[in-house]
Amino acid sequence: MGQTYPFSAIVGQAEMKRALILAAIDPRIGGILVFGDRGTGKTTAVRGLAGLLPPMRVASDCRFNCAPGEPAEPCTRCRAEIAVGRLRGKAAPVPVIDLPLGASEDRVAGALDLEKALVSGEKAFEPGLLASAHRGFLYIDEVNLLEDHLVDLLLDVAASGINVVEREGLSIRHPARFVLVGSGNPEEGDLRPQLLDRFGLSVEVASPRDVASRVEVVKRRDAFDRDPKGFAQAWKRHDAAMRRQIGAARQRLGEIRVPDAVLEHAASLCLSLGVDGLRGELTLMRAARAETALAAGTTVTIEAIDAVAVSALRHRLRRDPLDETGSGARIERALGALQAA
Amino acid sequence: MGQTYPFSAIVGQAEMKRALILAAIDPRIGGILVFGDRGTGKTTAVRGLAGLLPPMRVASDCRFNCAPGEPAEPCTRCRAEIAVGRLRGKAAPVPVIDLPLGASEDRVAGALDLEKALVSGEKAFEPGLLASAHRGFLYIDEVNLLEDHLVDLLLDVAASGINVVEREGLSIRHPARFVLVGSGNPEEGDLRPQLLDRFGLSVEVASPRDVASRVEVVKRRDAFDRDPKGFAQAWKRHDAAMRRQIGAARQRLGEIRVPDAVLEHAASLCLSLGVDGLRGELTLMRAARAETALAAGTTVTIEAIDAVAVSALRHRLRRDPLDETGSGARIERALGALQAA
Amino acid sequence: MGQTYPFSAIVGQAEMKRALILAAIDPRIGGILVFGDRGTGKTTAVRGLAGLLPPMRVASDCRFNCAPGEPAEPCTRCRAEIAVGRLRGKAAPVPVIDLPLGASEDRVAGALDLEKALVSGEKAFEPGLLASAHRGFLYIDEVNLLEDHLVDLLLDVAASGINVVEREGLSIRHPARFVLVGSGNPEEGDLRPQLLDRFGLSVEVASPRDVASRVEVVKRRDAFDRDPKGFAQAWKRHDAAMRRQIGAARQRLGEIRVPDAVLEHAASLCLSLGVDGLRGELTLMRAARAETALAAGTTVTIEAIDAVAVSALRHRLRRDPLDETGSGARIERALGALQAA
Amino acid sequence: MGQTYPFSAIVGQAEMKRALILAAIDPRIGGILVFGDRGTGKTTAVRGLAGLLPPMRVASDCRFNCAPGEPAEPCTRCRAEIAVGRLRGKAAPVPVIDLPLGASEDRVAGALDLEKALVSGEKAFEPGLLASAHRGFLYIDEVNLLEDHLVDLLLDVAASGINVVEREGLSIRHPARFVLVGSGNPEEGDLRPQLLDRFGLSVEVASPRDVASRVEVVKRRDAFDRDPKGFAQAWKRHDAAMRRQIGAARQRLGEIRVPDAVLEHAASLCLSLGVDGLRGELTLMRAARAETALAAGTTVTIEAIDAVAVSALRHRLRRDPLDETGSGARIERALGALQAA
Amino acid sequence: MGQTYPFSAIVGQAEMKRALILAAIDPRIGGILVFGDRGTGKTTAVRGLAGLLPPMRVASDCRFNCAPGEPAEPCTRCRAEIAVGRLRGKAAPVPVIDLPLGASEDRVAGALDLEKALVSGEKAFEPGLLASAHRGFLYIDEVNLLEDHLVDLLLDVAASGINVVEREGLSIRHPARFVLVGSGNPEEGDLRPQLLDRFGLSVEVASPRDVASRVEVVKRRDAFDRDPKGFAQAWKRHDAAMRRQIGAARQRLGEIRVPDAVLEHAASLCLSLGVDGLRGELTLMRAARAETALAAGTTVTIEAIDAVAVSALRHRLRRDPLDETGSGARIERALGALQAA
Amino acid sequence: MGQTYPFSAIVGQAEMKRALILAAIDPRIGGILVFGDRGTGKTTAVRGLAGLLPPMRVASDCRFNCAPGEPAEPCTRCRAEIAVGRLRGKAAPVPVIDLPLGASEDRVAGALDLEKALVSGEKAFEPGLLASAHRGFLYIDEVNLLEDHLVDLLLDVAASGINVVEREGLSIRHPARFVLVGSGNPEEGDLRPQLLDRFGLSVEVASPRDVASRVEVVKRRDAFDRDPKGFAQAWKRHDAAMRRQIGAARQRLGEIRVPDAVLEHAASLCLSLGVDGLRGELTLMRAARAETALAAGTTVTIEAIDAVAVSALRHRLRRDPLDETGSGARIERALGALQAA
Repeated sequence: MGQTYPFSAIVGQAEMKRALILAAIDPRIGGILVFGDRGTGKTTAVRGLAGLLPPMRVASDCRFNCAPGEPAEPCTRCRAEIAVGRLRGKAAPVPVIDLPLGASEDRVAGALDLEKALVSGEKAFEPGLLASAHRGFLYIDEVNLLEDHLVDLLLDVAASGINVVEREGLSIRHPARFVLVGSGNPEEGDLRPQLLDRFGLSVEVASPRDVASRVEVVKRRDAFDRDPKGFAQAWKRHDAAMRRQIGAARQRLGEIRVPDAVLEHAASLCLSLGVDGLRGELTLMRAARAETALAAGTTVTIEAIDAVAVSALRHRLRRDPLDETGSGARIERALGALQAA
Repeated sequence: MGQTYPFSAIVGQAEMKRALILAAIDPRIGGILVFGDRGTGKTTAVRGLAGLLPPMRVASDCRFNCAPGEPAEPCTRCRAEIAVGRLRGKAAPVPVIDLPLGASEDRVAGALDLEKALVSGEKAFEPGLLASAHRGFLYIDEVNLLEDHLVDLLLDVAASGINVVEREGLSIRHPARFVLVGSGNPEEGDLRPQLLDRFGLSVEVASPRDVASRVEVVKRRDAFDRDPKGFAQAWKRHDAAMRRQIGAARQRLGEIRVPDAVLEHAASLCLSLGVDGLRGELTLMRAARAETALAAGTTVTIEAIDAVAVSALRHRLRRDPLDETGSGARIERALGALQAA
Repeated sequence: MGQTYPFSAIVGQAEMKRALILAAIDPRIGGILVFGDRGTGKTTAVRGLAGLLPPMRVASDCRFNCAPGEPAEPCTRCRAEIAVGRLRGKAAPVPVIDLPLGASEDRVAGALDLEKALVSGEKAFEPGLLASAHRGFLYIDEVNLLEDHLVDLLLDVAASGINVVEREGLSIRHPARFVLVGSGNPEEGDLRPQLLDRFGLSVEVASPRDVASRVEVVKRRDAFDRDPKGFAQAWKRHDAAMRRQIGAARQRLGEIRVPDAVLEHAASLCLSLGVDGLRGELTLMRAARAETALAAGTTVTIEAIDAVAVSALRHRLRRDPLDETGSGARIERALGALQAA
Repeated sequence: MGQTYPFSAIVGQAEMKRALILAAIDPRIGGILVFGDRGTGKTTAVRGLAGLLPPMRVASDCRFNCAPGEPAEPCTRCRAEIAVGRLRGKAAPVPVIDLPLGASEDRVAGALDLEKALVSGEKAFEPGLLASAHRGFLYIDEVNLLEDHLVDLLLDVAASGINVVEREGLSIRHPARFVLVGSGNPEEGDLRPQLLDRFGLSVEVASPRDVASRVEVVKRRDAFDRDPKGFAQAWKRHDAAMRRQIGAARQRLGEIRVPDAVLEHAASLCLSLGVDGLRGELTLMRAARAETALAAGTTVTIEAIDAVAVSALRHRLRRDPLDETGSGARIERALGALQAA
Repeated sequence: MGQTYPFSAIVGQAEMKRALILAAIDPRIGGILVFGDRGTGKTTAVRGLAGLLPPMRVASDCRFNCAPGEPAEPCTRCRAEIAVGRLRGKAAPVPVIDLPLGASEDRVAGALDLEKALVSGEKAFEPGLLASAHRGFLYIDEVNLLEDHLVDLLLDVAASGINVVEREGLSIRHPARFVLVGSGNPEEGDLRPQLLDRFGLSVEVASPRDVASRVEVVKRRDAFDRDPKGFAQAWKRHDAAMRRQIGAARQRLGEIRVPDAVLEHAASLCLSLGVDGLRGELTLMRAARAETALAAGTTVTIEAIDAVAVSALRHRLRRDPLDETGSGARIERALGALQAA
Repeated sequence: MGQTYPFSAIVGQAEMKRALILAAIDPRIGGILVFGDRGTGKTTAVRGLAGLLPPMRVASDCRFNCAPGEPAEPCTRCRAEIAVGRLRGKAAPVPVIDLPLGASEDRVAGALDLEKALVSGEKAFEPGLLASAHRGFLYIDEVNLLEDHLVDLLLDVAASGINVVEREGLSIRHPARFVLVGSGNPEEGDLRPQLLDRFGLSVEVASPRDVASRVEVVKRRDAFDRDPKGFAQAWKRHDAAMRRQIGAARQRLGEIRVPDAVLEHAASLCLSLGVDGLRGELTLMRAARAETALAAGTTVTIEAIDAVAVSALRHRLRRDPLDETGSGARIERALGALQAA
């Protein structure tokens, strides 16, 4: 219901589109944060992501997105199906789930299915958005406005990959691994640092500043609004090409080598920028590896690290009251100093 | 129950009346914000809008205002009726729905019909005001006083055109596309920028400053209060004429051409004013197109853009602490500079 | 239960008594606001109002105060009675309903009759205070302390004359037109301007400053407290005379002429005082018309406008930080300037 | 359960004891406010009041304290009993009811008897503390800490003498006339002026400043604590004497004359002190009349007014920022000035 | 469950131990407040109190701790047992009840036994902690953090010795006389003065400042932690001796004489210190009497008063902004001045 | 579900690992507080703890972790099993229980099993996280964000070793002794001093500052993320060795001697630092004793005290506004001064 604007029809916004593609190649990169003003197409891009992703295999009729074949952690139903050799898989689109700002904790984490409980006296679990997002993407528009208790819940699940629901005598655990995608407006409310830290990459988007691009955006948007289906059809081919590229990069990912010198470069960069903890280095390595896979390379280079450095580290810098330079510029400067050294 | 004051009997207030008519011609213009003091007839104008609009066709007995014939997104009942070839349509007035300030979320978005659930054990959905407003207008008096969680809900639905209700095991989605009309008093509480951005046009209204108009307003009001039905009868013809004009403009709308030079002019105007995002340009184009259709033109001109510029952009300017000029004057100045260039 | 102090036994307080009488003659004047210190008899006057009003005709057994004969908007029950030609009317006192400060919204607007719902499974509406006040007076002591959600409700109903109750699957609309009478203490909490604007007239009351009046008040009060029934009996005749006068003025009201010059005078006065909107002029006209009817006149004069100007406009002036003059004096000054012009 | 300390065994505190006795003679005096530090015996005095009051006649088995014989406002049950000529009276102690600080509104005003409703399906009213206090005393320790919604409720009932309970389809009205007795500590939270105004008299209490009295208090208290029953027995005779005096004064009350000159004196006093409204004068007259009845006089004198002036007016003075004199001294000064005049 | 650290094994802290013993001898002394830093053994001392107290006689199976034989105020069950001559007593330890900070009011005051009500339809009262503490001790750790509504409840019950529970149609009164023991940390939140006043004695505790005592504390604590039962056994004899001493003092208490000169001395002391009310004097007398009984004396002396003066008055002094001396020192100074006089 | 990162694979962080091991040897040390920035592996270390601990014996099927054989405090079920000689034990991993930030009090303390209550009418207790943590570890990530009522609950249970649940007629007590492990970020919210005091040891962690260590961390983490099971297998041997060392130290613990001179040294150190109470000394003794047991010593030395001094006392120092030195440095300075003395 409702036609989505095609990802490839988005004018410009290269950094944002690249970050979403890298996370689609290696979800362990860990979440994309999109900062930018209203009306810059953040939501459009994330909603378009679904059309971009290669389908995945899921167990038929499974509400937890279990992987068929030999899932490491099957849900109760799938375990029973496996036992009798009946679990079947099917191709399904990678889920891109919207987490509405005011969603209740029950809706997000899942809850007792009250109806079944009342009618049949049976305690059944009604999976929530976290189950639906498993193995896919969870999108939060204006993540900076999310209520604290949901942030806590998301941090717990994002850290452990497991959603634990214990209430009314019910005790459920199910895997919930997803890429968190959050959009935010830097003018409203800061993010808690722990939440920031959970995002692998951050990108900034802005409206194009040249008249030609703007006219192009308006024309495409008007065309889409007047005939959504026809417009989507026209761009279908571009989305498919991108989908194939992502699929190929995923295949290659396991084979990419990361030399020690490259890791040392990443560590030196983080140390020189005073980044807390080590998630910065992990993200640099993973994003550069995904980048290399997309470019059909075999070995991560220092240049690949540098290419993702701004996206991977921008949101991890402490504010320095004596240095008014923006985060991006500070990272570029640190990269320059390392090259000079 | 209760006779409405006729739209055409409103004295003056040309800008407000024009904006409402443009939105009636092309609902994609996206919402009208009416600013002004108490007692300037804002509410009267919006309540009078219903009498102005050409009727629409809806499926008989459908509580979601489904379009009959071949609706793109029929509701469950209509889908069943279509399957057996029984869906019938009827003419109905375009809905102009009031959203009371203190309305509960259940009332707005719809909720489980508790009575049916208790009596028959059947989970039925009780549609809310968003369903009633589908394909029509949703009016919020003093939109600046609306509670935050309702603003969130409205923004979600306005952005997606779909109302999603998930609670107590119920999972309902239905289309909810409407023109949001909000009135506000600039002296009380600001609007959140995201909400502002959702309104296509904004107009300012004030009481007339000349004695003759004021006496005319008072006389008409007193005449209406003493004999509402007689008064309405006297103005019926004027409302009908306006209704025919709107209907004709709608027919023409799909044929209007928008030359690239006109779009470039709109983009230059928005860039020179530093308007965030691209909704400003989209609105300029759509409002000018509707204006052109109303004037029975075939091609949007730069002059048509300029004529709607103040209404389309006034609420999109950032406050400039160094420039105390009002929004309207800043837009006029930018238009002048563009002409000079 | 409990004898009311007779209206005509109130010592002094001419302005307040006059405003209540004008509203009794023409309810469209729209609400009386009584400002004053504790112990100045505000509550006594309003409670005494009931004894002053000519009785009205209501449908027998109707809980919504439907007018018998051919009511424009009969309630469900009355509609059924009319259909079978059985609707009967009876004389009843004009209701003067107290809205207690802490009343729940259910109590004010009406609600589902839970008992009937539980016992008979039948969804019945239990009308609230707004239904009881229809065609009469709704009195709020210390209106400045009223909770915000009730103020919102009252403003909605006062604006539309209709009470809409939608909850738990119930959808009820019934007419609720009443004169709002509010008392307030200027020392505690201001009124929201929208609420202020809903009151047609405002009056100020104070304790008498002369010993003779004060002794008279105390003696009458003590007499009343010691023998309420005897006291009421003694003043019955005075109340009845006043009631007859009001009845006669109502009859005449429709015939009173309002020359344009008089309306222009009212408009000039409001313009020169910078009153927001046009409710000021409407109230001036209606109050002067009621005044003229009470005085058995046929044409409203400029002098009649001037006589009600302070009561009609005092609460509509914006505060002028440079002019410390009280509202009443500013109005008198504006009247003087207009006469001089 | 629990022996009360006898009223007459209280050492000193003449002003407080006198005020309680006057209110026992004429409840229309309207409430006693007792200000003072902790440990000054406020609570002891009020709890001792019950032993002091002449018994009253109530209808047997009536939970609303209906007066037997020909009650003006019988409750439903008593009305039925009267109809069949079966209403019987009995002597009962005047109720002195404690209103605990945290009492729920249901407990105070009464509520639906849920048990009966559930078990027998019958809607029965469970009377609250206001019913129990009818025709007696309602005591609130630390009245300044009372929750706002209870203050509102008490003010409503105190003003009208009627308790109205409307909830869950239940609509009950019963008379609730009582003398409000409140104790407070001036160091904690002020009283709202409306509440202050409801108290007829206010008294200040303090611990005795001389060693002999203090030793006497401690000895009596220790004697009471060690043998409550024996102690009460020893003082029974004194309480009984006081009770007879009060009974006699009540008989005389209706015959006492209040000359106009005395009322003029009271009015002049209130005017010269700038007391809001006229409750000050009413209280002066009533307290002086009760005082005169207790002293077996026949005519209220100016001296009787002066004797109660401090108690009757102290809590009604506005704070004068330029005059730091205490309320009592300001009243004495005004009395002196009147005599000099 | 859980072995308590023996009271007599506490190193030092003589003032605190003495106060607890005096309250055990005469509960009318009225509550002990223990101020001190964390880790000074406050809780240990109070928990050890239970092992120190001579057993009391209670009615068998009575949940209200009724005294057997001829209880002045038997509970419903005991009254029935007495009627049939079947009430039996038994020895039971004096209760020392913990009031947890977050306890609900139902838990503290008692409530309807919902289970019985639901299952058998019988309204039974489930006694709360106040019933359990009757005739014993009620301990509140960190009394300064207690919620306000519980403080109110405790003050009511402490003042009257009776717990009144009225809810859901249930109306229960039972005696609840106990010694309130509260510990607090002066650094966190002050106590409300009314609550302070309810404590008869206050003591201050601090960690020992000499190495030898500290080592002794640590050794004893480690010995206890490693073998709680063995440790308790080793100190059993000391606790038993103290218990016998307390028993003997109780026997003597009724015979101790308090000469007037001693009371006058106590009154002079309180007057010179400006203590509010007379509870200071009552406490001085009672504590000195208990002290005298413990010392096997027959007549309270001025020296006995002086010995308890700091504990009895320290928490009753008003803060004097001009005198920075601590409360204890101010009391000592006043004692010196009285002796000099 | 979900493979844990092995404890021994943690790079560096010696102080934190040592503190966890000491608490595993002697749980009476009383809680470990881990302070440090995000991403320093706090959570990883605590989650890895489970793999490190020697298994314990528990009663089969016991939800309260009762010790089999002859438990001092068996639960109801175990008591019944013992009575019939059927209690069986089994080896089980020491529990390391996560307390999620938003956990309800019911979930933490246990609650009535509503399902059983509704279905079978049987009141059964559903044990909470405190029961699950008995005899093990309770981990709270970001303990500084824990809600106050949970802090209160934890303090009560930590102090008494017993969890008391009283609600809805249910009265349950069960032992709950556990080592509290809390992590916190010093930049967010302080801990309440009482809670701080409950932690025996505190450690600070930070990311390694040398490139080699950082590269090692990243490589190990990436290896773990790509193949959790293989990685865990590779480190299994190291964890097992550590487990054996802990087991041996526990055996030796009871035999270690603590000379008085060592206790005096600990007391002098605490006195010189002005540590509140005596928990500092107790912790010093216990931690040094565990340290000595781990090192296979027989007698605690002054050096052993000094070695644990910073961890044992750092969080117990009062802030000294005149001394800006960090806690660690102040302790080192005090140790130096004692040695010099």
